[in-house]
Amino acid sequence: MPMWTIYVPENAYTRQDLQDIANVITDLYEKYVKIPRFYVSVVFHEQPTGALFMGGVPAVDFVRIWIDHVVRNLDDDTTTLWLGIIDTALAPFIRDRGFNYEIHGDETPLPFWAINGMTPPPHGSEEEKRWKADNRPSALTEA
Amino acid sequence: MPMWTIYVPENAYTRQDLQDIANVITDLYEKYVKIPRFYVSVVFHEQPTGALFMGGVPAVDFVRIWIDHVVRNLDDDTTTLWLGIIDTALAPFIRDRGFNYEIHGDETPLPFWAINGMTPPPHGSEEEKRWKADNRPSALTEA
Amino acid sequence: MPMWTIYVPENAYTRQDLQDIANVITDLYEKYVKIPRFYVSVVFHEQPTGALFMGGVPAVDFVRIWIDHVVRNLDDDTTTLWLGIIDTALAPFIRDRGFNYEIHGDETPLPFWAINGMTPPPHGSEEEKRWKADNRPSALTEA
Repeated sequence: MPMWTIYVPENAYTRQDLQDIANVITDLYEKYVKIPRFYVSVVFHEQPTGALFMGGVPAVDFVRIWIDHVVRNLDDDTTTLWLGIIDTALAPFIRDRGFNYEIHGDETPLPFWAINGMTPPPHGSEEEKRWKADNRPSALTEA
Repeated sequence: MPMWTIYVPENAYTRQDLQDIANVITDLYEKYVKIPRFYVSVVFHEQPTGALFMGGVPAVDFVRIWIDHVVRNLDDDTTTLWLGIIDTALAPFIRDRGFNYEIHGDETPLPFWAINGMTPPPHGSEEEKRWKADNRPSALTEA
Repeated sequence: MPMWTIYVPENAYTRQDLQDIANVITDLYEKYVKIPRFYVSVVFHEQPTGALFMGGVPAVDFVRIWIDHVVRNLDDDTTTLWLGIIDTALAPFIRDRGFNYEIHGDETPLPFWAINGMTPPPHGSEEEKRWKADNRPSALTEA
């Protein structure tokens, strides 16, 4: 976690754009949330015309982002702040190119999460710091 | 919001069918929920045989719908009523063609939602009415 | 319900693998949760390189699983147990092949669920037993 699912019109972005967007998103979590980079999943769906609609109209200049976060009990102000940070970071790829975009996010239960069969260590723990430094999961030694 | 993700078997529907389904869904929200049409996103995934399973069997006559709504605190009776309205509206495309279908929906936190970098105006507000009349977002002047 | 959305790298699995994975998942719910097999939806997205990222890196050996369950009020211990059962069952397809994988799940409201236009019968009811035995939905006679 987090997992980003991003719907874009086919041919709106190059491969390099998608790589750059994935990097920007991953950088945000590393910088602000201090989680291991490998926690961040980004999926792109490049939708052919007629497979993505906004308001009943086939979308050609529309990016639709769906974020799933494990619950962190973000308060509303922090959520708004976070959306603003995202907005600024992605502007070169979305707003500055004249695209419309919509983002919504959900929060999912912490216990219902596993990486390589392990319950990820508590946020801020020594175990998590090791995973972060290594940028890969490894056997957990704490209970 | 709302966002509909619809899985259909490849070749089950024409492009026109998908357009018609997107229109029907968008019309429902405009008519019953009184939100701007452009709030409604519909994504279709046309799954090749062997990429969509119902009960472990490759689905050829199965439509799987996943709806995400921003929380409106729908009570259970309203949810049931809404599912009935959806069912009737989509019958010409699903039930009447002999397809099986399953729908589930989730409700996601209102603060975790943005359109073109803006927090959408409160439901029923003058700002929302303007967005609805224009069928596009515009700068917000209220706090 | 449940609905599993599984992102895999393109060419990581054969058609038969996907069929086998769908069967394993469906078997787990039949065996442990005692629900009708046809309740279980599994969607595979075979992502081309550069359309699935883990930690900003195009994923070639990464499987990302997203599970939606209708709310059953699973306690944390049961959730952990369930993730362990899943992990063991899928190991031949994921861990034993050297893939990294991440799973997260969400729980969605029970009233916001319908199959073929019907509210599925209560868990453990006679109606559900009939649906399970028939492995298909049929008209409900109870209130």
